[in-house]
Amino acid sequence: MQADLKKMFDKIRIVLVRTTHPGNIGASARAMKTMGLQQLGLVRPGTFPGAEVSARAAGADDILDAAAGYESIREAVSDCSLVYGTSNRGRNLSWPVMDAESAAETIIRAVADGGTSAILFGPESSGLSNADLESCHAVISIPVNGGFPSLNIAAAVQVICYELHKAGMKRCGLQVAGPAPPPPVSSAQMALLYDHMKECLQDLNFYDPERPRLLMRRLIRLFNRLHLDANEYNIIRGMLAAAQQAAKKHKDV
Amino acid sequence: MQADLKKMFDKIRIVLVRTTHPGNIGASARAMKTMGLQQLGLVRPGTFPGAEVSARAAGADDILDAAAGYESIREAVSDCSLVYGTSNRGRNLSWPVMDAESAAETIIRAVADGGTSAILFGPESSGLSNADLESCHAVISIPVNGGFPSLNIAAAVQVICYELHKAGMKRCGLQVAGPAPPPPVSSAQMALLYDHMKECLQDLNFYDPERPRLLMRRLIRLFNRLHLDANEYNIIRGMLAAAQQAAKKHKDV
Repeated sequence: MQADLKKMFDKIRIVLVRTTHPGNIGASARAMKTMGLQQLGLVRPGTFPGAEVSARAAGADDILDAAAGYESIREAVSDCSLVYGTSNRGRNLSWPVMDAESAAETIIRAVADGGTSAILFGPESSGLSNADLESCHAVISIPVNGGFPSLNIAAAVQVICYELHKAGMKRCGLQVAGPAPPPPVSSAQMALLYDHMKECLQDLNFYDPERPRLLMRRLIRLFNRLHLDANEYNIIRGMLAAAQQAAKKHKDV
Repeated sequence: MQADLKKMFDKIRIVLVRTTHPGNIGASARAMKTMGLQQLGLVRPGTFPGAEVSARAAGADDILDAAAGYESIREAVSDCSLVYGTSNRGRNLSWPVMDAESAAETIIRAVADGGTSAILFGPESSGLSNADLESCHAVISIPVNGGFPSLNIAAAVQVICYELHKAGMKRCGLQVAGPAPPPPVSSAQMALLYDHMKECLQDLNFYDPERPRLLMRRLIRLFNRLHLDANEYNIIRGMLAAAQQAAKKHKDV
């Protein structure tokens, strides 16, 4: 399954266009690698390679080493069947605008069907120009705070690669991995717990079967909400037993 | 509507725990501000404030100025009803694990219902410890490339704030804003276009009504797929008219 994901990601190129700050190239490579993307394209970068590029890559040097340099966007996307630009600004010409999530799903579908895709990120100061967008099928707009739309390029790469990773995982039927949970507890076991609890609270003189009020119902509602796992269940049963033992000793004295 | 979004975001605190690199604090503030988040909490930061913090904040100084310092996580989340930690690693104790998207939706629902929420981000080198996670109701896991899970803190803040912004926009019924599209074109107008096209191609001796083959059907399928807007429609009609005029002149000569 992971192999399928890698095969899809190998057909997606992240293209940084006229990026001026070397740190942004390194940080973009790192952002790509954390999400499993591999192919970096650089259209006329300001400074590349360099110490600041590598420092901010923080171990994603393989991405930098394999990065392809291009003289123009046209050259960078010549083998691609689906090209998206990223932008946070309105344009005079109305390019179709997609949000990052739908764009990522469309790209994953396209590369799974045999296509090749590129996503362009513009220069820090001005973003992609209308001329740059001429190679694009649509513009991906990352929704931002209108008053401060100053999304860093590597941050934008991170968001897009994150959405690609999510869409790719979904496509491959992969799940977010947490540690394996302890076995769950059945309703029958919970019923035993509630009997034990009632008995224990009676031993502690906290529950009076003659005047039950809503106590047990409230406790049942509370503990049902907890979805106890087997370990937690055993801890609670142990605590009840210890309390019963203490109550018994107390009586014996 | 934007006011509702702001009101919700004011009840979400991004808490950086023992962050060592000042640049990461600045970049996190910038990431927050691009997505409309305001409340930054710092638990025992390495260097704060400082020139490198401000440099990487790139204009999000108001977030830094308003940042609250805390001696402990407990202090940082004392007023919060819903606290999540972020982690990319499996833990011995099984905390409930959520993906960023569902966590963001849960947080937005909680603050819309009057709650207050905090999201913790651990130190660069080690992430949040099990002791740190004791204040948390669940752990948010950002799915990453297993071979290189080295997600930068500011990049993680960017992803989480992006998901919060998406969930908040959805909750408030706000849409990703593109430029207003030109009016669409009706089927009746498209039918006129196809008549015009046939007439024009006949004038150009490219279409022979005696042997129509599949030409018009293919062109209709192609142009229907384009979803022309009114401006584009007028350009095509203009081009057809110009071609017809040229054909006519040619015949006249």
